Amino acid sequence: MNFADRLAAESRRKHSIAILGVDPQLGTATSAGVPKGYTLVRFCCEIVEACAPEIVAVKPQLAFYEARGIEGMRALVEVIKLGKRLGLITIADAKRGDIGTTSAAYAEAYLGSGDFSCDAVTVNAYQGSDATLPFVMRVCDGRGLFVLVRTSNPSSGEFQDVPTEGRPMWEVIAARVNGWGGDFVGESGLSPVGAVLGATYPLHARRARELMPHATILVPGYGAQGASAVDAVAAARSDGSGIIVNSSRALMYAYLKNPALKPGEAALEAARKMRTELNAALTPAHAA
Amino acid sequence: MNFADRLAAESRRKHSIAILGVDPQLGTATSAGVPKGYTLVRFCCEIVEACAPEIVAVKPQLAFYEARGIEGMRALVEVIKLGKRLGLITIADAKRGDIGTTSAAYAEAYLGSGDFSCDAVTVNAYQGSDATLPFVMRVCDGRGLFVLVRTSNPSSGEFQDVPTEGRPMWEVIAARVNGWGGDFVGESGLSPVGAVLGATYPLHARRARELMPHATILVPGYGAQGASAVDAVAAARSDGSGIIVNSSRALMYAYLKNPALKPGEAALEAARKMRTELNAALTPAHAA
Repeated sequence: MNFADRLAAESRRKHSIAILGVDPQLGTATSAGVPKGYTLVRFCCEIVEACAPEIVAVKPQLAFYEARGIEGMRALVEVIKLGKRLGLITIADAKRGDIGTTSAAYAEAYLGSGDFSCDAVTVNAYQGSDATLPFVMRVCDGRGLFVLVRTSNPSSGEFQDVPTEGRPMWEVIAARVNGWGGDFVGESGLSPVGAVLGATYPLHARRARELMPHATILVPGYGAQGASAVDAVAAARSDGSGIIVNSSRALMYAYLKNPALKPGEAALEAARKMRTELNAALTPAHAA
Repeated sequence: MNFADRLAAESRRKHSIAILGVDPQLGTATSAGVPKGYTLVRFCCEIVEACAPEIVAVKPQLAFYEARGIEGMRALVEVIKLGKRLGLITIADAKRGDIGTTSAAYAEAYLGSGDFSCDAVTVNAYQGSDATLPFVMRVCDGRGLFVLVRTSNPSSGEFQDVPTEGRPMWEVIAARVNGWGGDFVGESGLSPVGAVLGATYPLHARRARELMPHATILVPGYGAQGASAVDAVAAARSDGSGIIVNSSRALMYAYLKNPALKPGEAALEAARKMRTELNAALTPAHAA
């Protein structure tokens, strides 16, 4: 089944556009890590299991597993397995991109049949079509990709907003995303070639939707990164479809604000709130 | 010790600018894999060990390990360990880049103290300074990075050559690389903030050197990717320093053209030839 159709159907069925970023921070001076008394795997899996009814997908951010070496990669395998067992869509937030056989190997790693295989992966397109096409070719196997188009970090404009013959760089990439995905638009009107688009620039979101009418847009900046629910859904299509919104820290670390609750319980409560807020934000703009 | 100084000193000591891409292909219809009778680890380690006297660094391309799941990641650990034991500089070809704590986690993964830690890493800067600074901060620990500036694949121009107010996108990035690295120029006159620059566009190489006078430039396209030795060294500084040149398949799979030799023996022969050709190409342009 077409990945975009499947994601849209699951989103309707669960009445949720929320996705959980399974991002176990490293526990430095400025970030929390794995809670006391928990292993990495138990922490991540408790959060995924608790949030499952409220979310449509899990999106492990690979950096946090790679930073922990082999033990981290083993935990990633468990998170992906659990997500699949719970019927969640799995998205490897890897932002990979290289050329030729190398990109093909990344596509095999994250959209193939190995340990780290997910339903979709995030991709960095700086190297052009050579970087993305090995991933695009996997849409025939029911897989999807989300190309990094416009991000929401403070310095994102350094290259993404550089003006190029009348339009910023990110719009050039957005136009290509639309091209790559054009042949694969499913029954939902959406393409498995999606885009990553930061939530903190709603004007960009609306422009992105014009440029990529068929893309499923993954919005990463909800919750801890500061965007409101209304901002987060700004790129939705007029019927409210075509968007999923990620929250990581605000769910994973909700227990820090609710010391009476277990990590999973606190995450579930935060996920419920997130789902409700997002659905409410979708309604006025997209009703009737 | 400053990473760029160390790399330059090793390069002088060994009289070599050659680096070995430890890229075990996946063994598909169009690419060779691990030779018969070899394990992944034994294949990679035999090649590294054999080539060690001729090369200054090893650069495992992570995609080929990730595609093999946990087993692949374990092999990566062995390759890195062996490289270090043999006194080679280790470069994780990861092309990572993300924002905030995520990029910091990638920096920890590849320039920290964990299983996958190397002396340097390749970085994708599309997300701006937020993506690169966590890596740049590691130069104080003697680590280095190579920022993807201009690549040599067929579609590399799609975004990299988009004109932006009079100069192509890749030049905007090159100028920023020079800025990021400016404070860290070592005794060699080189900065640990380097650049990846494809070998097949020698005009770009000379322009890149103008824009990044202090960068160590990693040229990936030698050998199987078709660039000549003269093209490959086009970005060297006038004294012949500031450049390292990678070859992967032409060394790893040299045995396919020399069936009488073991993989390691064939790779050594190819590495010797590569080193000699590169040194010869440096000489006329940079003599006196």
